[in-house]
Amino acid sequence: MAKPSIPKGTRDFSSQEIAKRNYITQIIKTNFEKFGFQPIETPSFENSDTLMGKYGEEGDRLIFKILNSGDYLTKVNDYLFNLKGYVDRIFNEEKILEHYKLNFESLFLKSDNIDKKLYYENIELFISKIINSFNSSIIDNEVMSFLNRLKFDVDVLDRLLIIFNNLREFETYKGKQLKSDLERNSRQIINKNLNLYINKVTSTISEKALRYDLTVPFARYVVQHQNELEFPFKRYQMQPVWRADRPQKGRFREFVQCDADVVGSQSLWQEIEFIQLYDTVFSALGLVGTTIKVNNRKILSGIAEVIGAKDKLIDFTVALDKLDKIGVDGVVKEMLEKRISQQAIDKASVLFDFKGGNTDKIVALSELLKDSEEGTKGVEELSFIFETITALGLDKSILTLDVTLARGLNYYTGAIFEVQAPEVALGSVGGGGRYDDLTGIFGSKNNMSGVGISFGLDRIYIVLEELGLFPENVAQASKVLFTNFGQDEALYAFKAIAMLRAKGIKAEFYPDNAKLGKQFQYAEKKGIPFVVVAGEQEVNDQVYNLKNLNSGEQITVNIYELIETLNK
Amino acid sequence: MAKPSIPKGTRDFSSQEIAKRNYITQIIKTNFEKFGFQPIETPSFENSDTLMGKYGEEGDRLIFKILNSGDYLTKVNDYLFNLKGYVDRIFNEEKILEHYKLNFESLFLKSDNIDKKLYYENIELFISKIINSFNSSIIDNEVMSFLNRLKFDVDVLDRLLIIFNNLREFETYKGKQLKSDLERNSRQIINKNLNLYINKVTSTISEKALRYDLTVPFARYVVQHQNELEFPFKRYQMQPVWRADRPQKGRFREFVQCDADVVGSQSLWQEIEFIQLYDTVFSALGLVGTTIKVNNRKILSGIAEVIGAKDKLIDFTVALDKLDKIGVDGVVKEMLEKRISQQAIDKASVLFDFKGGNTDKIVALSELLKDSEEGTKGVEELSFIFETITALGLDKSILTLDVTLARGLNYYTGAIFEVQAPEVALGSVGGGGRYDDLTGIFGSKNNMSGVGISFGLDRIYIVLEELGLFPENVAQASKVLFTNFGQDEALYAFKAIAMLRAKGIKAEFYPDNAKLGKQFQYAEKKGIPFVVVAGEQEVNDQVYNLKNLNSGEQITVNIYELIETLNK
Repeated sequence: MAKPSIPKGTRDFSSQEIAKRNYITQIIKTNFEKFGFQPIETPSFENSDTLMGKYGEEGDRLIFKILNSGDYLTKVNDYLFNLKGYVDRIFNEEKILEHYKLNFESLFLKSDNIDKKLYYENIELFISKIINSFNSSIIDNEVMSFLNRLKFDVDVLDRLLIIFNNLREFETYKGKQLKSDLERNSRQIINKNLNLYINKVTSTISEKALRYDLTVPFARYVVQHQNELEFPFKRYQMQPVWRADRPQKGRFREFVQCDADVVGSQSLWQEIEFIQLYDTVFSALGLVGTTIKVNNRKILSGIAEVIGAKDKLIDFTVALDKLDKIGVDGVVKEMLEKRISQQAIDKASVLFDFKGGNTDKIVALSELLKDSEEGTKGVEELSFIFETITALGLDKSILTLDVTLARGLNYYTGAIFEVQAPEVALGSVGGGGRYDDLTGIFGSKNNMSGVGISFGLDRIYIVLEELGLFPENVAQASKVLFTNFGQDEALYAFKAIAMLRAKGIKAEFYPDNAKLGKQFQYAEKKGIPFVVVAGEQEVNDQVYNLKNLNSGEQITVNIYELIETLNK
Repeated sequence: MAKPSIPKGTRDFSSQEIAKRNYITQIIKTNFEKFGFQPIETPSFENSDTLMGKYGEEGDRLIFKILNSGDYLTKVNDYLFNLKGYVDRIFNEEKILEHYKLNFESLFLKSDNIDKKLYYENIELFISKIINSFNSSIIDNEVMSFLNRLKFDVDVLDRLLIIFNNLREFETYKGKQLKSDLERNSRQIINKNLNLYINKVTSTISEKALRYDLTVPFARYVVQHQNELEFPFKRYQMQPVWRADRPQKGRFREFVQCDADVVGSQSLWQEIEFIQLYDTVFSALGLVGTTIKVNNRKILSGIAEVIGAKDKLIDFTVALDKLDKIGVDGVVKEMLEKRISQQAIDKASVLFDFKGGNTDKIVALSELLKDSEEGTKGVEELSFIFETITALGLDKSILTLDVTLARGLNYYTGAIFEVQAPEVALGSVGGGGRYDDLTGIFGSKNNMSGVGISFGLDRIYIVLEELGLFPENVAQASKVLFTNFGQDEALYAFKAIAMLRAKGIKAEFYPDNAKLGKQFQYAEKKGIPFVVVAGEQEVNDQVYNLKNLNSGEQITVNIYELIETLNK
């Protein structure tokens, strides 16, 4: 039997990895709570109609769908049974008959004598005969007889016979070709219709899907429970999400998202708090010089407006956002491809090399956008953010204005954040922004404004690993292992272990009476720093032989000394 | 638009509920670690072949399957296209022809004159004519002509005409019936074959499935990573699992399992530790008098053996296990239904009212099973457990021998545990047992013995709720809310908040400059015990007006006094 495996893009986590992940999530969680956020949890799978259509065209394709239980088979059965009839109408003998009918019709209907009624009533039968009986001389006679009754002119008849003979040859030669042509055409017809049909089948056989992110479930939660919630409503959520992306380095099909959002207030003080939250968390993780990039959707709109490319906002921002990755030439090329005029690009070119400190940039943008009402509003919002953060100060992070920042997602309406770790070349380790009308996607007319951020757990893990920032004792195995000398000694050991555990000390008992060397090896491999040997002698003396595996030191102690030593 | 909802059997969790659940899981987790268990995590979905067939017949039906992404449609397309041909062969005109053929054959073939060759070559065509042309007088002539060529006797011909006429009537009357009979029969044929076919389709369109429990993923993990693990391998796992059960009170489609297992040792000291672990956790949760029931599979085997129902072990134990629920009469009735002899039931009847303390029960079982080697072994194992637990003592729980305990699952080979909460009438709040050869299901020849237990989080929650055992401050909102008086005061508030948070105090700022009453109401509704009011005056004096919402007390303090007061 082949060794078992797990699906691509998924991971098992060992205790070591869990300890490190928990180290990160614990710091995030603690600070979420210090900033007044409280957790909620939503189900792993939502109703399909909650998730579908919320993530753009690509999104639906990447959502994992759950097959209905039980009755799924019967429903598909019925669909497939109907499909038989459906497909039959496309691909059956009629198609073949159709082909011949077209060939003969022109000939038959030219004749004035022909009894058209008779013709139409019998043509299919007539052709069936031909198809079914190429090799039988009898059929020729029947055809003749039939044709006689149709009162054909003799010359038409002659021509018909010629056609018939030709047809027979045609069929023998072309028969296979024709059949496969028909099959292929039918397959295309079927495929084209079946895709629509299958989408319908999919929605019949699957009514639930796995979470793709935490934002849509959050919106659903807010609308569903709106009568029970206090607004502004602040929540954090740290749960796995699932995406059918092609797995890559750092990209998984199951990963944990760490989100904090607040809905129900337009106050920019919330943007201030989120910047502080990013700063506090990344400083606590030991990252010095984390860059918190900020932009504003209104500024991007304003720029598109003043350069005369307002209708091309998305294409413009998508291209601009790639400046880091593809450089000025790449960005210009893409903008031209999307038919943004050279003139507009020239006007925007100041952004491609936006120098100076945050204040200089604000001044420059203020000037650039002075004729755009929306752009000016965006500049005011960013000004407030920069002035306030300057007044309050940051710990170890740096706040910077990045006018090229767009972050793909279309729903940001104000501030846009993205966080870059120092030193390690990686994608962002966090991001977020302001959005209006989150709950509108679920029919709520509240038009609630919200703002939220996310931490990229897996990327942060990579950064801490690379920079050696995980604490040394992050994964703590048991403190002490008691060796096993057999029944009587075991009871003695168990009594001591119970007392140690009552004092909060992690203690283990080696379950089998194996060779001492093997038991010590177990302790070493598991990183257990102390071993207690308590054989017959020790039981008699009511003591414990305690060995420190790191220092090699060995002492004999009573129970209280044992507790004291291990508690240090 | 209808209010959004979540799938049946799933739940949203509010902060309150999460705090309570975390209270329970934290106690379980802390004790798992004190007993030397370390966590692992496995993916939410495994490959289908990892899970299928591991949970009995019912199990596969209850597993949630994940639809393949992307290519799923094309594969189904191909299958369905082939299905058309497949179904055609079952349900097409041939079936109808077949029907008629049988009717005529007996008649035709009686005649000596008949040209059988001619007959067989043309019978289908002949019948086609009949089917296709009921209303046309011409066909009668054709039939006649055809029959002439077949050289029938006149009287046969007469009879045939009668049959033909009758048939026409038959068809008109029975036609619809016949057609629907044929359709129905075909549908049955299709359904029967399609079920097999659809199972094949299912395995084509779905290759992954959601975890049904944590034990099979654990076995897969051990086999997959066996070269990296130290044995005996102890792990705990606390993750959600999913089952397509019919939702009921206390039964959900998504729920968290809390498991601890150790594989690689047959030592009964591990059973001792698990009993201690149950005792420690339930005592820590404040439950006094939790009953830990224990039995042994070998004892059940032994009983079946000595009463002469060895081949009916499963039926016997399943019935016996229901003693609590359906009483002696119910159990006897079920045993008789499963054809366990009255004689055997009589021999077993001592178990239906098994009195006395654990020691009495052990003595009685010892006597009952003296002629069974396996049963005696089971008694020895239980003896060891009871003697040792007596020597070590338990905190608040009670250990009891329950000879009717079987717990459904078939894979226990030694000790079987089940835990009953005190006072609250509910199912079990925990269970587990010893199993041999966990890893054999994945082809490993190691024949590893293991033993493990599980905690029923949702049931424990219900018990603690009913008995009022959750701590009062289990869900802690923020400690203090700072009110919002506008821009300048906000900056002052933010500086204080930053200092409070640096001291670990949870502090919030009301984001909008709303009426003070509204801001206070927000604090009350969210259970925030303190509010700081810092208006223009307070900013000038560099003080803070701190109100205790519970006591109503109000004091004016500087920043250090503020920190001190809130830190108490």
